Amino acid sequence: MTALPRVDDFPVVGMIGGGQLARMTQQAAIALGIELRVLAATDTDSAARAIRGVSIDPIYDPELVLAFAQECDVVTFDHEHVPQSILADLVGCGIHVRPGPTALLCAQDKYEMRKTLAAAGLPVPQWVSLPHDEISRDEIAAFGEKVGWPIVVKTSVGGYDGRGVWIAEDVESVEKIIRESPYQPPVWLLEEKVPFIRELAAQVARSPHGQALAYPVVQTTQTNGICTEVIAPAPDLSDDAAIESQRIALKIAQVLEVTGMLAVELFDTGDRILINELAMRPHNSGHWTIDGANTSQFENHLRAVLDLPLGSPAALAPYSVMVNVLGTDKTNTYAAYRHVMARDPRIKIHMYGKEPRAGRKLGHVTAVGSDLPELLERAHHAADYLAGVIDE
Amino acid sequence: MTALPRVDDFPVVGMIGGGQLARMTQQAAIALGIELRVLAATDTDSAARAIRGVSIDPIYDPELVLAFAQECDVVTFDHEHVPQSILADLVGCGIHVRPGPTALLCAQDKYEMRKTLAAAGLPVPQWVSLPHDEISRDEIAAFGEKVGWPIVVKTSVGGYDGRGVWIAEDVESVEKIIRESPYQPPVWLLEEKVPFIRELAAQVARSPHGQALAYPVVQTTQTNGICTEVIAPAPDLSDDAAIESQRIALKIAQVLEVTGMLAVELFDTGDRILINELAMRPHNSGHWTIDGANTSQFENHLRAVLDLPLGSPAALAPYSVMVNVLGTDKTNTYAAYRHVMARDPRIKIHMYGKEPRAGRKLGHVTAVGSDLPELLERAHHAADYLAGVIDE
Repeated sequence: MTALPRVDDFPVVGMIGGGQLARMTQQAAIALGIELRVLAATDTDSAARAIRGVSIDPIYDPELVLAFAQECDVVTFDHEHVPQSILADLVGCGIHVRPGPTALLCAQDKYEMRKTLAAAGLPVPQWVSLPHDEISRDEIAAFGEKVGWPIVVKTSVGGYDGRGVWIAEDVESVEKIIRESPYQPPVWLLEEKVPFIRELAAQVARSPHGQALAYPVVQTTQTNGICTEVIAPAPDLSDDAAIESQRIALKIAQVLEVTGMLAVELFDTGDRILINELAMRPHNSGHWTIDGANTSQFENHLRAVLDLPLGSPAALAPYSVMVNVLGTDKTNTYAAYRHVMARDPRIKIHMYGKEPRAGRKLGHVTAVGSDLPELLERAHHAADYLAGVIDE
Repeated sequence: MTALPRVDDFPVVGMIGGGQLARMTQQAAIALGIELRVLAATDTDSAARAIRGVSIDPIYDPELVLAFAQECDVVTFDHEHVPQSILADLVGCGIHVRPGPTALLCAQDKYEMRKTLAAAGLPVPQWVSLPHDEISRDEIAAFGEKVGWPIVVKTSVGGYDGRGVWIAEDVESVEKIIRESPYQPPVWLLEEKVPFIRELAAQVARSPHGQALAYPVVQTTQTNGICTEVIAPAPDLSDDAAIESQRIALKIAQVLEVTGMLAVELFDTGDRILINELAMRPHNSGHWTIDGANTSQFENHLRAVLDLPLGSPAALAPYSVMVNVLGTDKTNTYAAYRHVMARDPRIKIHMYGKEPRAGRKLGHVTAVGSDLPELLERAHHAADYLAGVIDE
């Protein structure tokens, strides 16, 4: 990558990771006149296809990461996988890393996250940790008895999009999961299987000087651990529950000193809101904001990491529905555009420049308006058609 | 430029010209998963900074243009300045050039435009042409007498943003303008100075298979020939006048077989609508559509040149106000972000990655809502502050 001369006094933002989150951040960077560079794993990563300043580093080579970061005014991320040792190096070199390593640790390590949030008095499911080297049958049995079987088994590090999470019916299943797992984390987590009626997500943006704001709380639907549908705002959510969800997310952002976007995935049990997972970056639950909010999560992530005043998170319409386009065994997605666009001139299509593959997040669609059943029908039809699920 | 392998069956669109129109088209291309490449004059053109596939050609070298075009599925433009001979070469090589050379001629040559539109029975100001080699005092005098002095003198080719247009008080002024002009067109135009009460613009999108749609008609304000403010829709415009304006633009698109976006600048005399100028590309009068319409002019330009079904042009709110950020002698535009963003969390900022220079279009801001006076105040304050006009 040959660096271009800067424009006036505009900053350069470096994003580590070249996925669709970086790609969509580029749309916001273009509007703000900010140069976004990415450190991508390959030349054909989703974001690498749509950004001028691309550096390639498939393995987080410390020297390559540092060289990339030193050319940027601030470094941020489209995922949580950068090793803490590299983050420490960057901070040691005086680079603005946002969010910082301490905050990111709680997005990388679910054990750290549970400990920190529990210590802050935040509502988390009942949990216990098991050091990988000292798995105790008695502890497993006692925990299962306490919270009731089945329970949830999680790797503390390495999982994402539902990977690294299992349901166990008894002590033997827990042992088998741990024994056969592809993950070898230092610590395992056991958690109660929360009897939720639905999942929610609360997104907030927070800047280094401490400004923070909350987006409308959304309802998310996961299928096989992958987010498939988001409704903004969450239908039939009481004001109390919405405010409690936003309060939890704002409190987490403050306690962890998050800079940038924070997404908090929540369980709604009907009478309680419990914290499930965290992500410190733009998040699938906020894709609706591109078309449905005054300021997208991508623009507010940029504003936050640049310590600029944040933009209004207000919704533009009563409802937005976002549905992911998940790859099937079909290709020729573009050929589906004719039908989808002709059928629905108002649907908003977002495709990520990724080769189709079964289960892969290839894009998403958003429908914005006031008639929720109609929006759901339109968004699901478009997403299914683009994915090749509907065979016509 | 090293071409990346294609994604699935997605097309590659090439845009000739690397200005802000290409830059903003990139935002739409990212959403649609389409690879946009630009042929820019320099490596630091507005769009060249924000797009992966950049080729450089400062002079429209026929071989470079052809080589660029041959790698793309369709070629389009962010300006009207590509010579007809090159366009003919491209078409001769089987390249999809949209809009095509015949349509573009009417955006390049005001004499061709006036002739064609008048022949189609469309409402144009009174006009006469003067061959550059046969300027006749008698003809000038007769025309001035017929329509009343002062009159408008225009070069048929080469002008833009108010350049190449003069007001003349008498025959001698006309002769002086022609004698001293930097333009040496084959034909000069004399036109009546239309007693307009305001200027309007009607934008339509039209695709090769003939689908066409019209955006809401807007009111535009020019200062020194440069667009400075756009209100969408035009306030207090009668339904009849709005429909007539859209009818004119749709008819022009049909008659000229335009593909892509067409902007028609119009004079509103209070009782008549007259055609002023044409642009066959996304246009400053349509920048409000990024934030204020269901489908932006940039997305519909891409859809149209790709022969995809067009997206809804419906406005998202009762009013959108767009104000251009025109350069002054001030720099440090980014430093102004703090004030502008803190004062107005809802203002939408679009900066083009261009070095500040007096009179240069550096960006624009858009305010969307229902209270027109408030939107005007917010948009003008933000634009003035970003431009450095307000000295605080």
